Amino acid sequence: MEEQGGQAAFGWAARDDTGVLSPYSFSRRVPKDDDVTIKVLYCGICHTDLHIIKNDWGNAMYPVVPGHEIVGVVTGVGGGVTRFKAGDTVGVGYFVGSCRSCDSCGKGNENYCAGVVPTSNGVDHAHGGVPTKGGFSDVIVVNEHYVVRVPDGLALDRTAPLLCAGVTVYSPMMRHGLNEAGKHLGVVGLGGLGHVAVKFGKAFGMKVTVISTSASKRQEAIEHLGADEFLISRDPEQMKAATGTMDGIIDTVSAWHPITPLLALLKPLGQMVIVGGPSKPLELPAYAFVPGGKGVAGNSVGSVGDCQAMLEFAGKHGIGAEVEVIKMDYVNTAIERLEKNDVRYRFVIDVAGSLGSAA
Amino acid sequence: MEEQGGQAAFGWAARDDTGVLSPYSFSRRVPKDDDVTIKVLYCGICHTDLHIIKNDWGNAMYPVVPGHEIVGVVTGVGGGVTRFKAGDTVGVGYFVGSCRSCDSCGKGNENYCAGVVPTSNGVDHAHGGVPTKGGFSDVIVVNEHYVVRVPDGLALDRTAPLLCAGVTVYSPMMRHGLNEAGKHLGVVGLGGLGHVAVKFGKAFGMKVTVISTSASKRQEAIEHLGADEFLISRDPEQMKAATGTMDGIIDTVSAWHPITPLLALLKPLGQMVIVGGPSKPLELPAYAFVPGGKGVAGNSVGSVGDCQAMLEFAGKHGIGAEVEVIKMDYVNTAIERLEKNDVRYRFVIDVAGSLGSAA
Repeated sequence: MEEQGGQAAFGWAARDDTGVLSPYSFSRRVPKDDDVTIKVLYCGICHTDLHIIKNDWGNAMYPVVPGHEIVGVVTGVGGGVTRFKAGDTVGVGYFVGSCRSCDSCGKGNENYCAGVVPTSNGVDHAHGGVPTKGGFSDVIVVNEHYVVRVPDGLALDRTAPLLCAGVTVYSPMMRHGLNEAGKHLGVVGLGGLGHVAVKFGKAFGMKVTVISTSASKRQEAIEHLGADEFLISRDPEQMKAATGTMDGIIDTVSAWHPITPLLALLKPLGQMVIVGGPSKPLELPAYAFVPGGKGVAGNSVGSVGDCQAMLEFAGKHGIGAEVEVIKMDYVNTAIERLEKNDVRYRFVIDVAGSLGSAA
Repeated sequence: MEEQGGQAAFGWAARDDTGVLSPYSFSRRVPKDDDVTIKVLYCGICHTDLHIIKNDWGNAMYPVVPGHEIVGVVTGVGGGVTRFKAGDTVGVGYFVGSCRSCDSCGKGNENYCAGVVPTSNGVDHAHGGVPTKGGFSDVIVVNEHYVVRVPDGLALDRTAPLLCAGVTVYSPMMRHGLNEAGKHLGVVGLGGLGHVAVKFGKAFGMKVTVISTSASKRQEAIEHLGADEFLISRDPEQMKAATGTMDGIIDTVSAWHPITPLLALLKPLGQMVIVGGPSKPLELPAYAFVPGGKGVAGNSVGSVGDCQAMLEFAGKHGIGAEVEVIKMDYVNTAIERLEKNDVRYRFVIDVAGSLGSAA
């Protein structure tokens, strides 16, 4: 049991690289002046959680309490907190700290700060260097700078995944002008990220085409998520017919895949955004992007400002993730299913409904 | 001899894939209402010319009269020409036609029109489908839309390479915000394109670092071209020290090379622009660009508008290419030397001084 001397906390943690989660008691830090104490209501399960608890990246600091798609209610604020008060509905995303002094932080791009502190399994030097513990727990203490407000009217369970999956696609859509009515957006992969990208694209007034290896998702994409078209990437005829028709593509697929056929779908000067992370290098032939002036850009989550703007946009358009809400004691099964992509489209843990009230 | 029924023209052409150029008589088309007749004064030699005359791309339509970095003087205009008159100093770049009706043309991006008509070895359907003949000749007839004005005060021989090499780096610098004072630009490769990128970067008020495999160009880069720093890409220590310092990189190298070490030089959200065309696919590992939100974009020359803006900028800042001016009868030797990158930095043919007056 790890103690930071503050409020008692109860969550579920992985103890080793089996990744199996089990109940875990610890304590949160003593809140500072600029800290917000949050009772966790819901927390989404992201693929990143899976990688961390199984130590796929070799950086797990067990016990690991996962979770960075957090929606909760403020139960207390430090004396210096100006933006929140007890009772506010708030969100916390992928990170809870950054250096606040680098170029990226200065420009409001905390997500690209070299000293960014992930919400789970991060090293928080500003708070004693204790590994951060995430949202699979009843309470969390976060500097107010990294807390966002959840607009009224959003379903809180469906909002949780927006804090990471949502902003990860929203942020590059804004940055690369893929938010303009009448433009044509391609979305590769219809998982936790892709299905939200479809919703944002439609809310922006775009034409949205889902690109998938499998025909099985056609009905879902078009009838349920509102995509305009569905393209099977393994069908050369379909791909040829769509050549040069898209202004942008959000590629959410983490497994390695050829991007040359996708680049062919872009109009001249079109922009592809990669938000997944294949471990083998992508192949980028000059002929596929130089003559057309096309671009391939990466993206990693989004800034606090992006996150707040994304929630406002979601609130205005009634956008939420498609979720399967589970209790905490189902979490190990959920992670097994997530590994097989057996979820439509995001697991969200009903934390408060599982662990009871910590407030 | 190919006749189009208009003004007699005399140039040098390649007849087969040896690429050897020899004197060639033909005639230009009968000027239409919107055509400008131009006496060619200077024409640069671009690597593309070399590829075309040797049929490296399998599309040579012999006899090929190369040349698309043209500076000349207007000798006549059609009745519908509004922007030019006899005596004007003008330029013609990589292309002399486009469809004028597609999305790219509508946005003023003629260089990305699928029907773009290269100035040399292009198929000009609007003018009988006869292969276009470029600036290695005494006279050329061009639709006024594809003609740009050369500002007063520019050295005409040094201006010729700007029409292709110049705009090929200027255009993406403008598009990607790599034109702001105080930003840090990396330029990879110090050839015909790279050396002009250095000059533009300095004129924009940027810090410019030349990145090269060879230390031999350091003095030239810094003392002659005005670069601020010089980085040897094969020196791990130097590369490491420069990690995360650049806002953008213009990569002008056509030979295959790893781009991962270059991407590491970029700040978060930095932009790399590839203007060369390695034949083997570039390798793009996710870790090199996804976490930093970095981008890799292609670029192909620039629009007519870019070209005009670039010349105005060059005029204001006194920018010209570094050139070795040659007579036409040296052209075969020049091409041999170009193949070995033995030129500092661009050959320019003194066309009018070699072939006499066609006007």
